[in-house]
Amino acid sequence: MRQALLVIDLQNDFCLPGAPLFVAGAPACIPRAIAAVEGFRAAGLPVIWVMRRHRPDGCDIDRARRALFAVRPFLCASPGVDLVEGLAPLPGEPVIEKRRWSAFFATDLDLLLRRAGIEHVVLAGVQTPNCIRATACDATSYDYECTVLSDATASESDAVQRANLDDLARMGVHILTTAELLARLPRRAAASAAE
Amino acid sequence: MRQALLVIDLQNDFCLPGAPLFVAGAPACIPRAIAAVEGFRAAGLPVIWVMRRHRPDGCDIDRARRALFAVRPFLCASPGVDLVEGLAPLPGEPVIEKRRWSAFFATDLDLLLRRAGIEHVVLAGVQTPNCIRATACDATSYDYECTVLSDATASESDAVQRANLDDLARMGVHILTTAELLARLPRRAAASAAE
Repeated sequence: MRQALLVIDLQNDFCLPGAPLFVAGAPACIPRAIAAVEGFRAAGLPVIWVMRRHRPDGCDIDRARRALFAVRPFLCASPGVDLVEGLAPLPGEPVIEKRRWSAFFATDLDLLLRRAGIEHVVLAGVQTPNCIRATACDATSYDYECTVLSDATASESDAVQRANLDDLARMGVHILTTAELLARLPRRAAASAAE
Repeated sequence: MRQALLVIDLQNDFCLPGAPLFVAGAPACIPRAIAAVEGFRAAGLPVIWVMRRHRPDGCDIDRARRALFAVRPFLCASPGVDLVEGLAPLPGEPVIEKRRWSAFFATDLDLLLRRAGIEHVVLAGVQTPNCIRATACDATSYDYECTVLSDATASESDAVQRANLDDLARMGVHILTTAELLARLPRRAAASAAE
């Protein structure tokens, strides 16, 4: 079953202390996300980058966040909108801009995955209760197998992270550490991807 | 801001002890859901019924639940698929069949709400971490205001219920008891609805 890695919202405005939408657990998960990216590339499997980005006038901001954006705009201009240091797409790796929680909502992600013959998506990034969970929920709804990497995703606290991973497991989402997932990647994926 | 009540998955296969997908908290929430339905009707505001239903051969079952369905089919034949006793649509109240977690996924719910001029959806039903949360997440993504009724929704445990309501509050979803919500319904909604 062909897998792809989705790297979600690992942008400065979520990941740097003091940023407008800082997630406390984000800094600790970044090395694991980097390891996941490197493992998928080494296996010849796709890495897809998902980033939340808004227009500077805020016309595409969620209704629930309009007041917050008016006080302190976020995710609409460099460097806040950029990926954190250590993460960057290679030429040819798709980058998807999203406006809402789910990476599937109002994007072409499903189209890309189906066209590429992907049946299993693996999620890394922030934050687990919002964009990771919403993406996992949509992934299962579209009948993709879905794995969330427990140590390459993050929340504002360990309690929130744990509760969300438990809920997702009960919804049929696989929960694995990055090391566990990488150990299970097909050995001949590189050859298969080159067909 | 015009509101509608969405009554989600209050069907026997989720709500009766011993049913295939029984949610432990379901029986206790049903009287509150009934109160919410009566309150919206009394205010002249729409009640929309959302029910999960599957074809008897299981061709539309979530991939994650196919094995479970093969052992013990659910939500595909009376009386398991029926609404629990005490709840029934009135003539003219829309009934929406869904196949996945979110009431918006592969249904005409957004179309109905927009056509009716609804800007705020209020959620009752089961279960909170799955279909209630997925629907709330999509509702905010579509820029509806969203309220989840804390005592007219239910989970398998109080801990799961509490953790999910806390997460949803942080996503901008309003959390109210049924009594709190009903006390805030516009007094002249009935006149407005008749326009």
